[in-house]
Amino acid sequence: MAHSYKMTRCVTFAETDMAGILHFSNYFRYMEEAEHAFFRSIGFRVHSCERSGAWGWARRNATCDYQRPLRYEDEVELHLVVKEKRSKALVYDVRFMLAGSEVARGQVTAVCVEQADNGELRAAEIPPAIDAAIQQAPTDMTL
Amino acid sequence: MAHSYKMTRCVTFAETDMAGILHFSNYFRYMEEAEHAFFRSIGFRVHSCERSGAWGWARRNATCDYQRPLRYEDEVELHLVVKEKRSKALVYDVRFMLAGSEVARGQVTAVCVEQADNGELRAAEIPPAIDAAIQQAPTDMTL
Amino acid sequence: MAHSYKMTRCVTFAETDMAGILHFSNYFRYMEEAEHAFFRSIGFRVHSCERSGAWGWARRNATCDYQRPLRYEDEVELHLVVKEKRSKALVYDVRFMLAGSEVARGQVTAVCVEQADNGELRAAEIPPAIDAAIQQAPTDMTL
Amino acid sequence: MAHSYKMTRCVTFAETDMAGILHFSNYFRYMEEAEHAFFRSIGFRVHSCERSGAWGWARRNATCDYQRPLRYEDEVELHLVVKEKRSKALVYDVRFMLAGSEVARGQVTAVCVEQADNGELRAAEIPPAIDAAIQQAPTDMTL
Repeated sequence: MAHSYKMTRCVTFAETDMAGILHFSNYFRYMEEAEHAFFRSIGFRVHSCERSGAWGWARRNATCDYQRPLRYEDEVELHLVVKEKRSKALVYDVRFMLAGSEVARGQVTAVCVEQADNGELRAAEIPPAIDAAIQQAPTDMTL
Repeated sequence: MAHSYKMTRCVTFAETDMAGILHFSNYFRYMEEAEHAFFRSIGFRVHSCERSGAWGWARRNATCDYQRPLRYEDEVELHLVVKEKRSKALVYDVRFMLAGSEVARGQVTAVCVEQADNGELRAAEIPPAIDAAIQQAPTDMTL
Repeated sequence: MAHSYKMTRCVTFAETDMAGILHFSNYFRYMEEAEHAFFRSIGFRVHSCERSGAWGWARRNATCDYQRPLRYEDEVELHLVVKEKRSKALVYDVRFMLAGSEVARGQVTAVCVEQADNGELRAAEIPPAIDAAIQQAPTDMTL
Repeated sequence: MAHSYKMTRCVTFAETDMAGILHFSNYFRYMEEAEHAFFRSIGFRVHSCERSGAWGWARRNATCDYQRPLRYEDEVELHLVVKEKRSKALVYDVRFMLAGSEVARGQVTAVCVEQADNGELRAAEIPPAIDAAIQQAPTDMTL
C-alpha cells in the first residue's frame, strides 16, 4: 500500500511572473502534478470511466504556505504524503524542497466524485481498487 | 451580419513573466477571448450541443507577430476581424492596439468540428444559424 | 478609508480543464485580480518604485474552499474584504458568488516586501500612503 | 556545434480545457520549454547577465499548425531544430510527435535583445559564446 511520492519539477519561464519568481498559483498546479504522478506510480489514472459513470477527484480545499520564493530553472523536489484517508476523500500534504530546505508546504483535500445522470458531480466512495492501494501515511511523516 | 469585434483587456500580474512583460503564449488566449466575445455579441456560444452531437471550433493554425511588449495593467485593445469565411472554417485577424498604436497582430484559423460517436472530432459545415450571422469583412478591414 | 471591493469576472475557455470546470488553481489568480483591482480603486498599484528600492506584496499564505464548480462563461462575482491589517501585512477574504449564492471562498495573506540591495525580498512596513488608505473591515463583513 | 534537441513532455491536467484536449496556447509554452532545454543542453541559460546589461531572447513571431489533438497524460516528443541562424535572431522549427506520428508543428523566431539604460529592450548581436555553440541545421532536417 502506497502513502507517499517524490518527484522533481523544474520551474519554467512561463510560470514566473514580473517579480521574477514562480507565481503563487502555480504551486497548486505542482501539487496536482504530484498527486497525479502518485496515482500513476500505483497504476491508476486520476480520471477514469471504470464505473457506469465517469469519476474523478474534485478539490474541496487547497492551501499553501510560502516561505521562500522559487525562481526560473530551480529544481524543486515535491514530497507528497497521504495525510488522511476518509471514505470519500484523500488529504495530501506536499512539501516543496529546494537544495534540501523546505521553501513551501501545502495541503489539498480531494473528494472522490462521480457524475450523476444529470451531469452534476457528487461525492462517492473511493473505488475499492484504489482504496486497497492507498493508505494513510504514518503520523511521523506528515506535517 | 457581423464581421468584426472590439474589446479591451487589462494585462494581469499572473500573465506577465520574469522579463516583466506579457508572456507571448497569452496573446493566443487573448485572441480566443476576443473570438468568444465576438460570438457572444451575436448571440452564440462557441461550444454548443445544438445538433445531435456536441460541436465546437478547433484551431487549425495560430500565429502572432510581436512588435512591442505589453506590460502589467496595460489596457490593450483587441480588434478582431473575420478575414475569411469558408464552408467549414473561419479565419480571424486580430490586431493588438495600445494607446492607438499596433503592438502585435495575429491570426487564428478555427475549423468547425463535431464529435463523432467514437469521440473523435471531425470537421463539419458551419451550422446554418451561425453561417447566417457571420460574414467576411470587407477587404480594406483585414490586414 | 477603503476595506472592500467587488468585481465580476467571466470564466474563460482556457481557464477550464477537461473536467469541464474552472481549474482550481485559477481561483487564486481571480483573488489576486480582485486584490489588484482593489488597489487601483484607491489609486495605487500593487507594485511600485516609490521608495529607494522596489516594493510589492508577497504571498505568505493562500487558501480556498470549493463548494460548487464554476463553468465556462459563468459571471462570478468576487467580494474582497480586508479581514486584517497588520504593520507589514494584509489579510484578504474573498467570496466567490454565482447568481447570488456563494460557490467558493478563499483567503490570501500578503506581506509587504521590499527588495534589498542583494536582490532578496524582505518584509517591510506598509508604506504610509497605503496604510492611510486601507482599513480593516468591520467584523460583520468578514467570513 | 549544436543544431537540434529532443525532449518528452507529459500533458498535465491543468493544461487541458473543457474540450478535453491540450489548450492550443500551451503548444507555445512547450516550444519555449524545448528552446530553453536546448540552451541548457549546450551549457547556457536563455536569460543571463553576462554583458553590462541583462539580455535575453524576445519573440518576434510564433506560429503553430495543429493536426491532431493531444490529451491528458499523452507523452509528446518535441523535436526542435535550428532552422535559421541570423546575426541577431534564431528561428526554431518544432515538431510535436505522438507515438511516432506528427500531431503538430510550430515555428518560433527569437531575437536576441539587450536592455538599454532606459529599460527598453533592443535587438542585439547574438553573444559570441552562443554564436560559437549553435549552428543552423542541415536543410534536410528542417520542415
